Amino acid sequence: MLTLKEIEQAALRLRNVIHDIPLSSALTYSNITRASIFLKYENQQKTGSFKVRGAYNKIMKLHENNEIKSVVASSAGNHAQGVAFAANAIGVEATIVMPRSSPIAKVAATRDYGAKVLLHGAFYDESYQKAIEIQEEAQSTFIHPFDDLDIIAGQGTLGLEILRDLPGADIVFVPAGGGGLLAGVACCIKQINPRVRIIGVQAEGASSIARSFAAGKMVTVDDIRTIADGIAVKYPGAKCMELINEYVDEIVVVSDAEIAATLLMLIERSKQIVEPAGAVSLAAALNNKVEIAGKKVACILSGGNIDVSFIHKVVEKGLITRGRYMKFHTVMLDVPGSLEKFASILAKNNANITMVQHDRLKADLDLNEAILHIACEVDGFEHGHMVIAELEKAGYSITMESDDYRF
Amino acid sequence: MLTLKEIEQAALRLRNVIHDIPLSSALTYSNITRASIFLKYENQQKTGSFKVRGAYNKIMKLHENNEIKSVVASSAGNHAQGVAFAANAIGVEATIVMPRSSPIAKVAATRDYGAKVLLHGAFYDESYQKAIEIQEEAQSTFIHPFDDLDIIAGQGTLGLEILRDLPGADIVFVPAGGGGLLAGVACCIKQINPRVRIIGVQAEGASSIARSFAAGKMVTVDDIRTIADGIAVKYPGAKCMELINEYVDEIVVVSDAEIAATLLMLIERSKQIVEPAGAVSLAAALNNKVEIAGKKVACILSGGNIDVSFIHKVVEKGLITRGRYMKFHTVMLDVPGSLEKFASILAKNNANITMVQHDRLKADLDLNEAILHIACEVDGFEHGHMVIAELEKAGYSITMESDDYRF
Repeated sequence: MLTLKEIEQAALRLRNVIHDIPLSSALTYSNITRASIFLKYENQQKTGSFKVRGAYNKIMKLHENNEIKSVVASSAGNHAQGVAFAANAIGVEATIVMPRSSPIAKVAATRDYGAKVLLHGAFYDESYQKAIEIQEEAQSTFIHPFDDLDIIAGQGTLGLEILRDLPGADIVFVPAGGGGLLAGVACCIKQINPRVRIIGVQAEGASSIARSFAAGKMVTVDDIRTIADGIAVKYPGAKCMELINEYVDEIVVVSDAEIAATLLMLIERSKQIVEPAGAVSLAAALNNKVEIAGKKVACILSGGNIDVSFIHKVVEKGLITRGRYMKFHTVMLDVPGSLEKFASILAKNNANITMVQHDRLKADLDLNEAILHIACEVDGFEHGHMVIAELEKAGYSITMESDDYRF
Repeated sequence: MLTLKEIEQAALRLRNVIHDIPLSSALTYSNITRASIFLKYENQQKTGSFKVRGAYNKIMKLHENNEIKSVVASSAGNHAQGVAFAANAIGVEATIVMPRSSPIAKVAATRDYGAKVLLHGAFYDESYQKAIEIQEEAQSTFIHPFDDLDIIAGQGTLGLEILRDLPGADIVFVPAGGGGLLAGVACCIKQINPRVRIIGVQAEGASSIARSFAAGKMVTVDDIRTIADGIAVKYPGAKCMELINEYVDEIVVVSDAEIAATLLMLIERSKQIVEPAGAVSLAAALNNKVEIAGKKVACILSGGNIDVSFIHKVVEKGLITRGRYMKFHTVMLDVPGSLEKFASILAKNNANITMVQHDRLKADLDLNEAILHIACEVDGFEHGHMVIAELEKAGYSITMESDDYRF
């Protein structure tokens, strides 16, 4: 299996290669949970995620033993960047096979670290097959994203850093997809201090480790549905699962809504961009998935590689749930000047119109009437309700279209 | 004037009260500028900005001398939170007068730190008058946001931290609005090492310090226009300006577009949320406002309190300039099935439709034609151009509506 010594050796290899980001105490979340919450910001790690730890440890160990010419990996995400960075730092050639649908930003980042990128296949499985082919032809070394003891040992170094910064930790929340990070951290921390509870966290819609853990045997989840692409894995690694069964106390799951709300809090309160897979740990702590009041709790925020259009959606969703956008409609006379009068009331009350739609095609309208659909920005629910009240005072009958605004 | 000793005393007062966030080396920006760029993330500071430094130093010093009962301040932004936090930490009552238009989030944050918040006046000037009234009636102490030597000494402690972490610094970029931060940091660093160049950075549309510095006398800018609300100040502090004239090497300005692009880079590459005023320093470095190639450069990112709807706009703008959104229109037959055929081509080419508008009200259309306006998400310019080419191959004549997409 995996000894503490191997994790300590990985830490030596990684020293001066990766960023050492100290655990950071987080008063906001501590107040909410009545626990002492500490965050490990691996979104600030080189390549934007913890994946560089395992990849570097694996490749460097092979390099030390002269067992490596070149490496091959397949990934659409953080593992691609981790392997590319590590291979480049060590001076080994890397080929990364990525699905054709991979976001351009991730392809560019992987190339920027000096790797050869091959776009192949519609899905990960096809890229994986291609990578194995290349590895065999070129007598190269395939670097698995999680099911490899040297990879697991690299990820486990996070456990050493957490105990160094918070020796009295009671609970550690760890994101889990394939299980490499969870296996490594649990294996590390439990060997040092079995008192610390290790909680694995998965996305509700991609919970193969949670199910395998509960069933006591490997369970595959074919219908993966989650915003947390970094941990959207159909089946756990066998080596990972063995360590998880031995060292992990509990696996919990969080919903996409819980993940999105946590991402928004991290943006607003902590001024940090974390990717959905990276935020599941804090989401579990904030949503009382296990009892944490009064405890010292560390959450690993495992990465920050999130597509900017996804940030856009998370923020937009947040604006709506906080009452910052409101949509409504009203019936008005279909004559010149009607809209102007209506708009002037909104302007006087500081509501910023973002959409106006004028609709006469409705059966139950009189011939001289039209429906006006309005979207506008307001400061929040209180302001929004005030604006609606002013419109009603002026004689308009208002029907809300935003769910969160129904009275 | 202000001695180094007073700044060192401020640092002692602040020890264990504020976060000590080490300078962070930033390879991405170093590669772009061929300089060594280091960032001081004061967006991660308590209250989300450096303002807590000056406020705490001022109030604590008065408290040490038994010269204080309560404090009053007026601010719509970071100073409000800084004073509220500092007064609460020291155990002094605080009243903050905020303009009625202040964002709800900032009012709530100020109240959360235990301050009494009074919403008064449409603009800052009216809130300021009210604060002065309260101070006189209650024999309280007014805490100025910048033009006070104890405030300036508190902000100056940032200079000590920068030189501790980067003793060989060549250039330091400092955001400037009223001038408290710039005066303090310049005064600190120049007394320790006159070799270090200090560059103040203002927003193009709020450049009273730049103009005053150039003119050698106080210049007021009445027409303030900038997205950087944290440094949107009409005239500099007189005490600040005196120190700036003595210690600062150069003042440069950056445009709103430069600020917005820098915010987006900080989000995507550094995974950090910085407010517009806080990003002007890095914007100046990235846009070659002074020669920095080959130099060791520190940029103070002075705060992170940005409204979430503004993040939304910055990200949206970024998506458009990177070709991730495209808008176009085409003429098609106004018969059932037309839209379906068109939409199927977009679907096959992985373009995600976000808006469809069907328009028959145009003079130069035949009776059986309609205009279709489409907005869709694509991966970038290359993908967008490919989608358009496929539509044209199918016989559609496409007119782009996104400026960045014109061929």
